[in-house]
Amino acid sequence: MERNIVVSARLFPYLINIVLVLLTFGFPLQASADDPRWGTASLVVVVEREAGSVVIIDSSRHELLGRVSGLGNLTHATVKFSPDARYAYVIGRAGQVSKIDLLTLKLVKQVNAGKLSVGGVISQDGKYVALSNYVPGEVRILSADTLELVKTIPALYKDETGNEAQSRVVGLVDAPGNLLVFSLMDANSVWVVDAGQKEFPIIKKFANVGKLPYDALITPDGRYYLVGLLYSDWMGLLDTWKLDRVAPILAEQGKGEEIPLWKIPHLKGWALTGRLAFLPALKREVALVYSALDWTPLTPIPISGTALYTVVRPDGRQVWVDIIGKNGDLIDVIDVDTMKVVKTLNPGPGATHPQFTPKGEAAYISLMDGGKVVVYDTVTLKLLKEFPADHPSGIFFANRAHKFGM
Amino acid sequence: MERNIVVSARLFPYLINIVLVLLTFGFPLQASADDPRWGTASLVVVVEREAGSVVIIDSSRHELLGRVSGLGNLTHATVKFSPDARYAYVIGRAGQVSKIDLLTLKLVKQVNAGKLSVGGVISQDGKYVALSNYVPGEVRILSADTLELVKTIPALYKDETGNEAQSRVVGLVDAPGNLLVFSLMDANSVWVVDAGQKEFPIIKKFANVGKLPYDALITPDGRYYLVGLLYSDWMGLLDTWKLDRVAPILAEQGKGEEIPLWKIPHLKGWALTGRLAFLPALKREVALVYSALDWTPLTPIPISGTALYTVVRPDGRQVWVDIIGKNGDLIDVIDVDTMKVVKTLNPGPGATHPQFTPKGEAAYISLMDGGKVVVYDTVTLKLLKEFPADHPSGIFFANRAHKFGM
Repeated sequence: MERNIVVSARLFPYLINIVLVLLTFGFPLQASADDPRWGTASLVVVVEREAGSVVIIDSSRHELLGRVSGLGNLTHATVKFSPDARYAYVIGRAGQVSKIDLLTLKLVKQVNAGKLSVGGVISQDGKYVALSNYVPGEVRILSADTLELVKTIPALYKDETGNEAQSRVVGLVDAPGNLLVFSLMDANSVWVVDAGQKEFPIIKKFANVGKLPYDALITPDGRYYLVGLLYSDWMGLLDTWKLDRVAPILAEQGKGEEIPLWKIPHLKGWALTGRLAFLPALKREVALVYSALDWTPLTPIPISGTALYTVVRPDGRQVWVDIIGKNGDLIDVIDVDTMKVVKTLNPGPGATHPQFTPKGEAAYISLMDGGKVVVYDTVTLKLLKEFPADHPSGIFFANRAHKFGM
Repeated sequence: MERNIVVSARLFPYLINIVLVLLTFGFPLQASADDPRWGTASLVVVVEREAGSVVIIDSSRHELLGRVSGLGNLTHATVKFSPDARYAYVIGRAGQVSKIDLLTLKLVKQVNAGKLSVGGVISQDGKYVALSNYVPGEVRILSADTLELVKTIPALYKDETGNEAQSRVVGLVDAPGNLLVFSLMDANSVWVVDAGQKEFPIIKKFANVGKLPYDALITPDGRYYLVGLLYSDWMGLLDTWKLDRVAPILAEQGKGEEIPLWKIPHLKGWALTGRLAFLPALKREVALVYSALDWTPLTPIPISGTALYTVVRPDGRQVWVDIIGKNGDLIDVIDVDTMKVVKTLNPGPGATHPQFTPKGEAAYISLMDGGKVVVYDTVTLKLLKEFPADHPSGIFFANRAHKFGM
């Protein structure tokens, strides 16, 4: 009897041994089967605004990879990518910056870099994450590697009483020559910072560009910075090759029948083909069209409501228009050859934020009130696939890593 | 004494335990230190033509990751990427296709798909690798996943004696709508194949486009296919939105003083800004310039010799010209604002194939006879870094995955 007990006691450590070895070898094996590896160039990050999380999809196979949670207030979030698209930086409304490893789908770092933020950008050299903050009114620059604070640039101006104040910052983009360009919402100004110099000097300040800048875009080649103005009948255009002035271009904003402003539209570089620019109008049910060569206005295109986004398919042959407010569930598809809406899609409740795969053969759309992300074939305009998602909003393709201002 | 021995014996399994746990936990830790992971969006594959190998560099950190060997004859090799940039497909002169996993730097598959090949392309949907073969004269289509043969399209034509023959195929590109477009060198023709249909039908054949097509490009938006003609004084232009004709555009090829043809120049989509096209001339020491809007010829730019490649920096502000033959070690840098060569670089013996990082802040150049790849800052035009490489030639950035015809 005693002998048996001794044997059992002597076997015990071996059993522990076997269990431990199984655990340590077993987990990696299981992980490699359940967690295959992927290239990062065409991943998609979709914001789940209520849950404070993102889902990550591989658009080359239209396959859901996983979810990363704990990202704070994402009611007006944006996502930026490192140049190799290994890391996504999720910038939340409250200035929370979360760095996600897209190979492991783990949150690797999180900091708070402001009280109220509306966007951000990665510098051309990939070294910095810059935030455009409302509160405090500033551009805040972090190390893309560590998320440590590198520099704060307060957006100082004199208000109508002559006191120094800090303006809300909007329309922050990177530009060739490692520049950062942004607009001061309360100061009607555009500033240019050299992010290639240690002190991040403000190398240009343009005042009186127009009333209440609300957003801006930079053309895909990084040459032209175009700022939208809420209370002026023009848009402001800065040629970054010259950096000499913010020239007014006719926006046709004051023309036509005025309707309610449901939401301030978004301006992004995706609105341009080589020759044409398609922009959402303020308080009008049209897409504004410009020649992207000389910035003269062309005939606006009637659409199903007011536009929040106008997104050009990468080959420039279609523009998908996200309608907001009245008819907010609809997406208009404009054919650029005929300059007409050729199809109105009704993907589902709260359809928003159409975005294309890098070569444009498919489009992803969030159904904010439909609990899904849907994928369309852009030639047949038929549904290809859908993914469950919790109040999805912004959709961010990793090839933004290589586009100025994105 | 006996008691002590018993204790030692009882400790033994625990010691084994500790060793095993250290080994199993220790190896993954060591592996992750020696074999770090990386995003794939901005990797660079450089061909070592004599050795039949490639080196892989991470351009986001300018860091050498490793080498993959055993890729056959790479004297006229090209590299294509899967849409997620996980895989590189190296296509060798003898029709050998090698699929490389860019996460593990391992050769995962290799097949022979022709006797003499000059190029290839990935279809817009990412499903196929298509090869343009000289011998046999054909387009050969493989599964991008398995490299299994899916379809062969012989480039059949009637030769001058009225017999059926197979033409050499050049200038193969993908185009929006999942099309493949290519030129028949011996048949003066351009064909269009629908890769979205099961049988890969030839949906268009354009004959008599000009004498001896030698290469072609498609504009970055995938709209215009431009074919170079060795014995005609024009180039051929196909509008892929219309697919109605290959229109002649003036090439200015016959004008000016003729000099030796050192090598047939390469045409690629990288030669275009939104408004301008810069193309290497045949037998003349100039870069040809066109309006990319209406394809009218503009004043050619004198350069240091004849060009093999003309490569536009991604922001369109510079063109780097690879000189071949006389002054073959030089690279001319054209400033697009003034349309002049502003700097002539002498990077070293056999300098060739300048290519830019995705946002253009740096350029990589192979020194074919200097055993190095050198990296320049494109603003200061100073050397940033160099890597040893064995007779390096072609340089391929992974963001080609998202560009038509690349």
